[in-house]
Amino acid sequence: MEKISALNPPQRILMGPGPSNVHPRVYQALATPIIGHLDPEFLNIMNDIQNLLRYVFQTKNPFTIAISGTGSAGMEAALVNVIEPGDTVIVGVNGVFGGRISEIVRRCGGNLVQIKAAWGEAIDPQRIEDALKTAGKVKAVSLVHAETSTGALQPIEEISKLCKQYGALLIVDAVTSLGGVPVKVDEWQIDICYSGTQKCLSCPPGLAPITFSEPALIAARNRKNKAQSWYLDVTLIADYWADSKRAYHHTAPISMNYALHEALRLVQEEGLEARCERHRRNAAELIAGLQRLNLSPLVAEPHRLPSLTSVKIPAGVEEAKVRKTLLIEYNIEIGGGLGDLAGKIWRIGLMGESSRKANIVYLLAALGEILQKK
Amino acid sequence: MEKISALNPPQRILMGPGPSNVHPRVYQALATPIIGHLDPEFLNIMNDIQNLLRYVFQTKNPFTIAISGTGSAGMEAALVNVIEPGDTVIVGVNGVFGGRISEIVRRCGGNLVQIKAAWGEAIDPQRIEDALKTAGKVKAVSLVHAETSTGALQPIEEISKLCKQYGALLIVDAVTSLGGVPVKVDEWQIDICYSGTQKCLSCPPGLAPITFSEPALIAARNRKNKAQSWYLDVTLIADYWADSKRAYHHTAPISMNYALHEALRLVQEEGLEARCERHRRNAAELIAGLQRLNLSPLVAEPHRLPSLTSVKIPAGVEEAKVRKTLLIEYNIEIGGGLGDLAGKIWRIGLMGESSRKANIVYLLAALGEILQKK
Repeated sequence: MEKISALNPPQRILMGPGPSNVHPRVYQALATPIIGHLDPEFLNIMNDIQNLLRYVFQTKNPFTIAISGTGSAGMEAALVNVIEPGDTVIVGVNGVFGGRISEIVRRCGGNLVQIKAAWGEAIDPQRIEDALKTAGKVKAVSLVHAETSTGALQPIEEISKLCKQYGALLIVDAVTSLGGVPVKVDEWQIDICYSGTQKCLSCPPGLAPITFSEPALIAARNRKNKAQSWYLDVTLIADYWADSKRAYHHTAPISMNYALHEALRLVQEEGLEARCERHRRNAAELIAGLQRLNLSPLVAEPHRLPSLTSVKIPAGVEEAKVRKTLLIEYNIEIGGGLGDLAGKIWRIGLMGESSRKANIVYLLAALGEILQKK
Repeated sequence: MEKISALNPPQRILMGPGPSNVHPRVYQALATPIIGHLDPEFLNIMNDIQNLLRYVFQTKNPFTIAISGTGSAGMEAALVNVIEPGDTVIVGVNGVFGGRISEIVRRCGGNLVQIKAAWGEAIDPQRIEDALKTAGKVKAVSLVHAETSTGALQPIEEISKLCKQYGALLIVDAVTSLGGVPVKVDEWQIDICYSGTQKCLSCPPGLAPITFSEPALIAARNRKNKAQSWYLDVTLIADYWADSKRAYHHTAPISMNYALHEALRLVQEEGLEARCERHRRNAAELIAGLQRLNLSPLVAEPHRLPSLTSVKIPAGVEEAKVRKTLLIEYNIEIGGGLGDLAGKIWRIGLMGESSRKANIVYLLAALGEILQKK
């Protein structure tokens, strides 16, 4: 076969829906020569990662680890471990990822109850309460805290109280919020929360931070039949990550764990609160600038996600052409709309390392140039 | 919380059952700044990876990609896509990984027929034929080409002919062989073959190369119900990797794919045949040296795996202590036995970059010193 050339990717400013740009220290960690996944030194690194993840999830949950797959594997792990055939699950659907949760619930044999809202809006707690009242015994309620497809932020606390009241587990997708927008697992009493590494944590994609409360772990352990996934079975994974056991399950992605370790250290150095404040401040600055360009945000206050801003595309603008010009001429990646919003919005991410003033100023100037020319 | 210190792992010579040492060029690729997973330039890299994987799998299968998880995710993807509830599956079990395949078949609701052999031996084709004759309609036969828990190499061709004769799919675990021991997917008519990156390909762990034949893809597409895993559903993953579609499924682990790209380029530069010959030659040299130390291989010829040699532990030797001394004092990692072979064997890997004369000479000298002292 033909000789394949060496990698030579362009240098991009990543302001789409993820991945975000990565700090040089994280790349350095990624390129650190590996040791074995059962080496005592690696086990120490796993402990550090668990402690740092507890910090960003704001939880004391012992089972707080990184699943060896991307954010979608985290979603699947969250669901397949606790949903058994016939279980009723209420899912808030206001974008692509609520739809994906629904699809996995179906594949678990769950009895799916969807609560839909317009894309870009949040789910009204009243509607969850109505469903809890009428759906019979509900095993779990699942919500997307940060809808990457729309830029909507879902308030969690009120729905969490309803879940406790009705004895349902609360499962929250925090893929686009963790590390940039407050995710208070213990205070909000979330039972299962998962994320991805490539958004506000600014680590390359490949791992899915996840945490299970004690009731969630009990639900996983007391299932009638084993979970349909062996790879994502948290009862086995817990024994691998537990300091006291370290029972071999699979080979952890060592380099990715090195990278996550360093990315989380950067979060710790900055401080979670300061980091979330930076995300809030920069999103406000971006929106003000977009409005000066006559671009309006899709999502109304107070449901705007600081990590991802969606803006409506003005009439007469060829959105794909603008994105392509940004990518090819300015080396800036932003995202288009998905599903119902395809062709109607741009999605501009300010996540982790990408949430910088320099990026905002550059993007606004570039967008201004392109829109003026057309 | 306490400030977590920077990574500072020791430098190890990895001669265990995997991971193996990684070439500096692969680390450089790993640390290359990422671009978006839907960036046109990344799509070109995905194409390169598919072409290079077809080269190492020796196949023309269009669906030849890297699953976004470790080798065990590859195993799960191989099984959950084609095994439906009630399907009869014959599994060769002569070590840990045949046991793991069995466990996943059970979780698919499959009707499991195990053909067992002593750990360290290969599965006799006659016994597979007997099972095919008596088990009714058989959906698939699954074999472990290279049993990482024992160091046994399973001949495939004869059993493959039986599978064709009886209309069963052949699923082969090549985790510890691909890239170091010939794996001839097309010539041997394997329907599904999967591997891991961290063995003979000498890339860090985190991806699972996999290939599906046309009949295997048809089986996945014609299922009565959707596969129980959304994350590993090859009908969706195929649309993501297909050059004509690139339908978003999940965010590919970009950095790991960069690393795999470079690791596969190294295989291409060396040439697959020369690489397999190097693995054979070095294994023979290792075994000769071990025999000079009065250590006998567990596996009889011709079933010894060039990538992993298991040796019996002499009476009176505290095996864990020897391994610990090798690790701490010599920075060499080798593996112990698993399951039935715990405490009875050492597993010495010579995989990819680790399969080097210098490593063999150093390990033999170190082992000689340690065994003499005791």
